[in-house]
Amino acid sequence: MSKPTKITLLGSGTIGLSFAALHLSKNPTCRVRILDTRPDLQDYVSKNLPSYLTDADQESCISRLSFAQDIADAVHDADIVQEQGPENTSFKVSIWPQIEAHAPPHTLFWSSTSGIPASEQSRNMRDRSRLVVVHPYNPPHIMPLLEVVRSPETADEVVERTLKYWRDLGRTPVVVKKECMGFVANRLAFALLREASSLVSQGIVDVEDLDNIVSASMGPRWAVAGPFKSYHAGGGEGGLSSFIGKIGETIQNCWDASEEDVRKGGIRVGGDWQRDVCRQAEEAYGVVDTHERDRKTKQVLEAVKK
Amino acid sequence: MSKPTKITLLGSGTIGLSFAALHLSKNPTCRVRILDTRPDLQDYVSKNLPSYLTDADQESCISRLSFAQDIADAVHDADIVQEQGPENTSFKVSIWPQIEAHAPPHTLFWSSTSGIPASEQSRNMRDRSRLVVVHPYNPPHIMPLLEVVRSPETADEVVERTLKYWRDLGRTPVVVKKECMGFVANRLAFALLREASSLVSQGIVDVEDLDNIVSASMGPRWAVAGPFKSYHAGGGEGGLSSFIGKIGETIQNCWDASEEDVRKGGIRVGGDWQRDVCRQAEEAYGVVDTHERDRKTKQVLEAVKK
Repeated sequence: MSKPTKITLLGSGTIGLSFAALHLSKNPTCRVRILDTRPDLQDYVSKNLPSYLTDADQESCISRLSFAQDIADAVHDADIVQEQGPENTSFKVSIWPQIEAHAPPHTLFWSSTSGIPASEQSRNMRDRSRLVVVHPYNPPHIMPLLEVVRSPETADEVVERTLKYWRDLGRTPVVVKKECMGFVANRLAFALLREASSLVSQGIVDVEDLDNIVSASMGPRWAVAGPFKSYHAGGGEGGLSSFIGKIGETIQNCWDASEEDVRKGGIRVGGDWQRDVCRQAEEAYGVVDTHERDRKTKQVLEAVKK
Repeated sequence: MSKPTKITLLGSGTIGLSFAALHLSKNPTCRVRILDTRPDLQDYVSKNLPSYLTDADQESCISRLSFAQDIADAVHDADIVQEQGPENTSFKVSIWPQIEAHAPPHTLFWSSTSGIPASEQSRNMRDRSRLVVVHPYNPPHIMPLLEVVRSPETADEVVERTLKYWRDLGRTPVVVKKECMGFVANRLAFALLREASSLVSQGIVDVEDLDNIVSASMGPRWAVAGPFKSYHAGGGEGGLSSFIGKIGETIQNCWDASEEDVRKGGIRVGGDWQRDVCRQAEEAYGVVDTHERDRKTKQVLEAVKK
């Protein structure tokens, strides 16, 4: 895009501010406009945005930021409208037709929802092919992943332009081809969380040791090569097939043990296990310094590229 | 330990060589002795060990390496005996009493098994308190994790000395307090693998995209802070408890969807899904360059410390 991209953010919670920082810092000519109903909006943004811009030219970033009065004002000349309002189906269903009525025909419509698929959100739109979910892994100004979750109606051209925008910014957009509960990243992470909670609740390891196990093994491994690639490498010349051939029995035994342990342990949200795991996390970590975490995460992401 | 540590390795497959490299390079005065029944042992080690020692003083390492003729010769003055022989219960049950008969009273006995617990292996030992599993995450000369899996009989003193040895070498030994199927790291990774296989088999993402999702999100995140710490941070001041309070319903919905998908998709080892997932991995990756992977993994581990 040769002209500066005009991006409108609907909603300025932590995800909205993180996206604002991401666009402004990685896309050095773009203009970002924020619409949010909070009365102290400008004050709030001035106070909080700088902490997301520690590595950027803050003056340049803030000079390209503005605020909108209403939907028409917010979207009338936008190239991208990115929504991170309340996680509430009726809110999202009602907002898109209003946006559609005021936006130019080329505008990309993105929702940052973590669970309400585009096929539901777009219900009352005139042209449902325009909407796609762009789900970040928090916080998006640090984490490269964007899950581009298309609905059956989403146009290929919308997906392609969405991918291009994020790739040009050096991020990692990945297409999720079918809408599914929780999308992909959370499904994977929650599957591991359940197993982790089950093992802790059995007294096999405590919360801090479990975290240490992950940070000394699959965390760094998967930062470099995802689980399939890692196991494919583990199988040598025969690849994943040979890997499963060799230790398939152990894998199935582990899956069977997990199922039984999860069932016996009642590892469901709200179960007895939860109190103890939360108490252990509180005792081990208190309040986590996310700035330190984000600083290290950036270093890790740089290290993978070298 | 002021005197040079004498370490005997039983078995010199890829794990044995990787451990040899780890001891020799990180413990610069130790002596390593290898016992293995392969006839070309010295040739094989001379050819293969150097590729594990790319960052080390190879001459010093190799000068401290020797070979044993039999069990008595291998263990008679050893401080540590580390076993990575065949993954076969009867082999391990029969070897430990022989080792015990020839080793000094202070020798630490470690098994690198990925699944046969010390309580089974030690069945015929005179003093079952001496054996503990020290399960690496491959390859151990790169990955910091060592799961120290104690049996009900393992002595506290054995666990403490084992932890001290590895901590002195800058590694991350973690105690697994109760023996369980697959220990902890594999249980966690396999739980995520099952979910990943289920999502791929449904056509939601392909193998390479799934790997990209993990490497752009939870991989680097968990390299810095494990899953509990990450979610605890995600809950702000209220921690993990507040995190589950906010999105617990989504978590449970994801767990329910996973169970149903895994059941419907027949995601068991040997199921129909396996062929397609293995074919996708082969097409995406061919033969993986593990040297490149290991080089990057070392950089990631350094980046976390900075």
